[in-house]
Amino acid sequence: MKQYLKNHEWQIVEEGFDPHLNRVSESIFSLGNGQMGQRANFEENYSGDTHQGTYIAGVYYPDKTRVGWWKNGYPEYFAKVLNAPSWTSIGINIENQELDLAKCKVENFRRVLDMRLGLLSRSFTATFPDGKKVEVNAQRFCSMADGEVGAIKYSIKPLNFSSTAKITLGIDADVVNKDSNYDEKFWDRVYEESQMGWVIVSAQTKKTFFQVCTGIEYDLEMNGQRIGGKVFTNIRDKYADNIVEVELTEGTELTIYKYAAVLTSENHDKEELVKKCHAKIDETSKIGFQQLLAKHAAVWAHTWSECDITIEGDIAAQQGIRFNIFQLMQTYTGKDERLNIGPKGFTGEKYGGSTYWDTEAYCLPFYLSTSDPSVARQLLVYRYKHLPKAIENAKKLGFKDGAAFYPFVTMNGEECHNEWEITFEEIHRTSAMAYAMRDYVNYTGDKDYFTEFGLEVLIGISRFWVQRVNWSADKNKYVILGVTGPNEYENNVNNNWYTNYLAAWTLRFTQEALEYVKNSDGSKYKSLSGKLNFHEEEETKKWKDIVDKMYYAEDKTRGIFLQQDGFLDKELIKVSDLPAEDRPLNQKWSWDRILRSCFIKQADVLQCMFLFEDDFTLDQIKRNFDFYEPMTVHESSLSPCVHVILASKLGYKEKAYEMYLRTSRLDLDDYNNDTEDGCHITSMAGTWMSVVKGFGGMNVREGKLFFTPYIPEQWKSYSFRIEFNGRVLKVKVAKEKTEVILESGEPLEIMLNGKGVKL
Amino acid sequence: MKQYLKNHEWQIVEEGFDPHLNRVSESIFSLGNGQMGQRANFEENYSGDTHQGTYIAGVYYPDKTRVGWWKNGYPEYFAKVLNAPSWTSIGINIENQELDLAKCKVENFRRVLDMRLGLLSRSFTATFPDGKKVEVNAQRFCSMADGEVGAIKYSIKPLNFSSTAKITLGIDADVVNKDSNYDEKFWDRVYEESQMGWVIVSAQTKKTFFQVCTGIEYDLEMNGQRIGGKVFTNIRDKYADNIVEVELTEGTELTIYKYAAVLTSENHDKEELVKKCHAKIDETSKIGFQQLLAKHAAVWAHTWSECDITIEGDIAAQQGIRFNIFQLMQTYTGKDERLNIGPKGFTGEKYGGSTYWDTEAYCLPFYLSTSDPSVARQLLVYRYKHLPKAIENAKKLGFKDGAAFYPFVTMNGEECHNEWEITFEEIHRTSAMAYAMRDYVNYTGDKDYFTEFGLEVLIGISRFWVQRVNWSADKNKYVILGVTGPNEYENNVNNNWYTNYLAAWTLRFTQEALEYVKNSDGSKYKSLSGKLNFHEEEETKKWKDIVDKMYYAEDKTRGIFLQQDGFLDKELIKVSDLPAEDRPLNQKWSWDRILRSCFIKQADVLQCMFLFEDDFTLDQIKRNFDFYEPMTVHESSLSPCVHVILASKLGYKEKAYEMYLRTSRLDLDDYNNDTEDGCHITSMAGTWMSVVKGFGGMNVREGKLFFTPYIPEQWKSYSFRIEFNGRVLKVKVAKEKTEVILESGEPLEIMLNGKGVKL
Repeated sequence: MKQYLKNHEWQIVEEGFDPHLNRVSESIFSLGNGQMGQRANFEENYSGDTHQGTYIAGVYYPDKTRVGWWKNGYPEYFAKVLNAPSWTSIGINIENQELDLAKCKVENFRRVLDMRLGLLSRSFTATFPDGKKVEVNAQRFCSMADGEVGAIKYSIKPLNFSSTAKITLGIDADVVNKDSNYDEKFWDRVYEESQMGWVIVSAQTKKTFFQVCTGIEYDLEMNGQRIGGKVFTNIRDKYADNIVEVELTEGTELTIYKYAAVLTSENHDKEELVKKCHAKIDETSKIGFQQLLAKHAAVWAHTWSECDITIEGDIAAQQGIRFNIFQLMQTYTGKDERLNIGPKGFTGEKYGGSTYWDTEAYCLPFYLSTSDPSVARQLLVYRYKHLPKAIENAKKLGFKDGAAFYPFVTMNGEECHNEWEITFEEIHRTSAMAYAMRDYVNYTGDKDYFTEFGLEVLIGISRFWVQRVNWSADKNKYVILGVTGPNEYENNVNNNWYTNYLAAWTLRFTQEALEYVKNSDGSKYKSLSGKLNFHEEEETKKWKDIVDKMYYAEDKTRGIFLQQDGFLDKELIKVSDLPAEDRPLNQKWSWDRILRSCFIKQADVLQCMFLFEDDFTLDQIKRNFDFYEPMTVHESSLSPCVHVILASKLGYKEKAYEMYLRTSRLDLDDYNNDTEDGCHITSMAGTWMSVVKGFGGMNVREGKLFFTPYIPEQWKSYSFRIEFNGRVLKVKVAKEKTEVILESGEPLEIMLNGKGVKL
Repeated sequence: MKQYLKNHEWQIVEEGFDPHLNRVSESIFSLGNGQMGQRANFEENYSGDTHQGTYIAGVYYPDKTRVGWWKNGYPEYFAKVLNAPSWTSIGINIENQELDLAKCKVENFRRVLDMRLGLLSRSFTATFPDGKKVEVNAQRFCSMADGEVGAIKYSIKPLNFSSTAKITLGIDADVVNKDSNYDEKFWDRVYEESQMGWVIVSAQTKKTFFQVCTGIEYDLEMNGQRIGGKVFTNIRDKYADNIVEVELTEGTELTIYKYAAVLTSENHDKEELVKKCHAKIDETSKIGFQQLLAKHAAVWAHTWSECDITIEGDIAAQQGIRFNIFQLMQTYTGKDERLNIGPKGFTGEKYGGSTYWDTEAYCLPFYLSTSDPSVARQLLVYRYKHLPKAIENAKKLGFKDGAAFYPFVTMNGEECHNEWEITFEEIHRTSAMAYAMRDYVNYTGDKDYFTEFGLEVLIGISRFWVQRVNWSADKNKYVILGVTGPNEYENNVNNNWYTNYLAAWTLRFTQEALEYVKNSDGSKYKSLSGKLNFHEEEETKKWKDIVDKMYYAEDKTRGIFLQQDGFLDKELIKVSDLPAEDRPLNQKWSWDRILRSCFIKQADVLQCMFLFEDDFTLDQIKRNFDFYEPMTVHESSLSPCVHVILASKLGYKEKAYEMYLRTSRLDLDDYNNDTEDGCHITSMAGTWMSVVKGFGGMNVREGKLFFTPYIPEQWKSYSFRIEFNGRVLKVKVAKEKTEVILESGEPLEIMLNGKGVKL
């Protein structure tokens, strides 16, 4: 855990330069716009410890799988987020001395991420080895108004000298992935051009043949006047630049505006990429930095107006929640149906593929509540389009007749992961697709989604479950053997309660969806049945049989559900009784020791109670929470939010607040000592849920909004906004009262603390 | 399965050359002498599909671990059997045409492994593209009389031409391991020399710094006369040769004798290696091929006199058992306490490290019965010497106070394997060390082994079990969670019956050993207690408690022990009901499907009943055999032998014979389609047990020999020899009678079919 950032309501502020924290800051200060983004690497060269990272949504590389021991069924490739050509560098060389914060004396270093504007700023003074001193102010952003555009304003002022500076303005496509399995480079060259004032580099990924064309133009300004300079043009394989010689005068600031355009073959014909890229940078540089920034900031202003959460009386909490919302919003905008929410967004390349069940289980409620319903629908359609691959994936593992098994990690629908206990066994994820539909329909009432897309997916998933359960003659029940539940600190267990529950629920839900489609659009139902070779009578009979006879492990004495068969054979120890030096367990204990311990990585039984809280009595939730919570180590970032929500429901306010701090400042305070690899983007939606669903007690039941809010003692008030059925509601919770204001849209009745309230 | 070899009592015979079978034959026809060995690669160049392999016992390389997902506790290195400098090549070039069976027309190809002599022969005629035709006869062996020596006799006769031949006689140390994790080469050069008539190459392994110095000399003979030729000497990095130009005359045979010496820094000072190697090849070539072969054959004659098994009336079975014995004897001779029995011996490099629990569980009875007791003792001492590493290994996984956890795969005592479900969880192996002591003491009566070495190991292992069990408040018993039993088609299960049984037995056995040492050598016991910081009262009390309260899963209705908790939740299907195209499961099914199926890779509950057959009634064995046998797929080579032995005991003669065929000709008939990687050396000891302990019903109880023999219907008679307490017994079983003859040693009483018989 690190606490080196300043608290501020709207800004993330780092003061003073500590090279040891550089990778962490590079993650935290990352920028993105849903289409592209990059870590907060310095513009000028830096020879110290850094992880250079530029990422473009949807541009990936299928790296050859590396395993110790191959298991049948493993995918041959792991499609990875790809480190992409970088456009942010501005090299400064003065009398053969490179401006390099690892080699200069650095003072007054200040890095600020302004979340309201979506602007990254950095300022410092640097003293070169020979005593020359410069002051630097840099700003940059990736435009939310135009996903293909980015801009930098970089000012340098000589404080105690006048001299010639050589300024390198380049594009580098000769980049590597940190996690390349066989130290391969993933890019091939296509085209480089460097002319006075502009540079273009086009590169293509190996195997996947994505082309990315990156262009830059730049302007230099001194005393408010545009100036020129002597320009040298350079190209080499996958790299091009302009080197500009400019005379610096003591006390006078030189400002460099670098405009970038990044176009990909995902959105343009390959043949036209270079031409279009050229046009784009021309256009962009003509608009100019201030105007581009204004357009960008306007998008952010609108976004914040829809999704901001305010917290009064606790700046750290306020900063935390805004940071979470900011990162979510710059990771995924819902504009492109081919994209999804990568676990690291644009902040790093760890965990490869872009899509996990995190999207459905954690992120969807956030986008449902803060964005137009089309955004959430987009996320659902994304999975619909992957249905054929999910069926293929199931086939590889021996399933048949159209059973759909969604991958654990994916880019294009194909499974990427290769750890048998996850890839093959963490099967609950395939029902997350069904749960997301439940959420979507529940919020939006748009049941026609079943007709258009949903039922087809649901039948595929149900067919998977029908084949995946087996009849236990011993138990006289259906059982599900050999699974890994959400708690990945158990592998290959039998009858994980969460999984069994979700499987049976999926079959029931599919039946409901089927009834809806059948009754509302008989001809569509008929044609779908034909397409899927669906035998309604036989198949639904089997569903019902499984639903009726599913086995659920429980301990009747304690009145709890059992996470899996045999859980009570473990030594039941509390986390609080563990020596501090044993934690985090995943860094201190061998894997087998973790597996046979009672310790829970992330909510599992409790996760299910959170997802289906209306299915359980408060007393049931309490007994299970009291049993499992003390054994939960929350070594997954996806865990604390669930505990916030259930603890809130149970009135465990202290526990809820403790868990809230853990989720909301996970990256800002580098809680798990891994922020240097990137931020935990998907869990940030969990933080949002902690406030809205936890403290705010927000829920949607059959199209109706419910709130049962309370306020953590440490806060004076908090407020959040909810998009719901075309309305925007603002909920403000203070110690003494709760206000719910209909900010826009038609009148509506909500339930507040159990009572109907008309707005 | 392939059946391309001719049946013969003493020989393995391949007739006709099929390049597709070449890798399989290279494995089957491998040669070794306990110290070095090699696959049956051709002497002349071969550009077709081949796996070139030369191996030297004890010379290994710690290859950097490669995994997909690192788990805490994994070893950083995997110590591998090392492909070593090769001395067998003889290149033949005639008028710029290389003799290469991939490029010539090959006729009359015949390869013979004479197991009585330990001699590999090969003959063929080859027609070059230009029509020149030669006849070749080659013989080679690795001397059992001198482990550092090998020799080749290679004759070539031009059938339809006279011309100059260039003969390349070299040593190549620039070899690679097929399974190098990162495509690294493992050898560094040390020294090369090539002078007229001899060549020496010395190379050193990276990281481990083993030096291997290989030298050759040669003689050429024509018409019984030694001849010379024009000699060119060549060296390059890690390679040296002589190229000799000889005039060939149509119809006249040229014979090349190539003598090799292989000396390693394990047995000689590095500084003296080259000198000693030179002296050795001088000496060897002076002795000459026929004399070297005679000495070698004499050793084999002696060996066969001790361990041969004859089978009358079934040549395939006779050939099979001799092949198994032959391979075992050329893999391990018991001369060097640092060596052990690698799973592939000198026939391939798969499976890396040299020592598995196979040695203790399968091989020990063979060496105990066919060799001097010192050989088996050597194998025990090998593990004693690894005790500190076993303690270190346990420590890495969180155990303390001198708990000893023996590695799953090792070279020098350190764990090499990196698959969590095996490395960390297949823990029963550590008790195999205790079982081996039981076997040894049982056969030899040498209880002082406990005092000298054994008790220290037993206390270490017992301390491991004490920490590895945990108390289940739910069951009110000790349980063992998260293990993999011998049946590796189940991972991370609870209360594997085999493991629980072995753990409790180990504690009882340690107590017995302790009593013996305490009573027989009180002062040694005292000093040992001090050394180990052993708290007798407290520790033995805990042992007793665990023994008394160990949980054993069983199904009382069926009267069977359960392989593990929850086994009866599976669908219980018979192997005979599986579609043929689904097998072998490990090639056809994804791993999760295998895991949740009932199918058993190798005997597990039955393995335990085999090890402790006196602990169970015949009825118990029958019920468990009848339950588990139909679900066993025997996809481990170690499985069928156990079934032969139990089936024999139960009078299931057909089943016993079916299983016997499977084990005895596993490699000869390439049953599992994997012989190309090397032979299954350790399971060959299981084949021996199948005859002696299965059909012969041999057993040792408290120092007394028992036989309850029967004869498979397909055989006329069979016989085997047993070394026992300084005697050699020959047991001959025919349809009508069994003869037990005391071939040497003092009179002795044995039990034959339940009756005492004095010999």
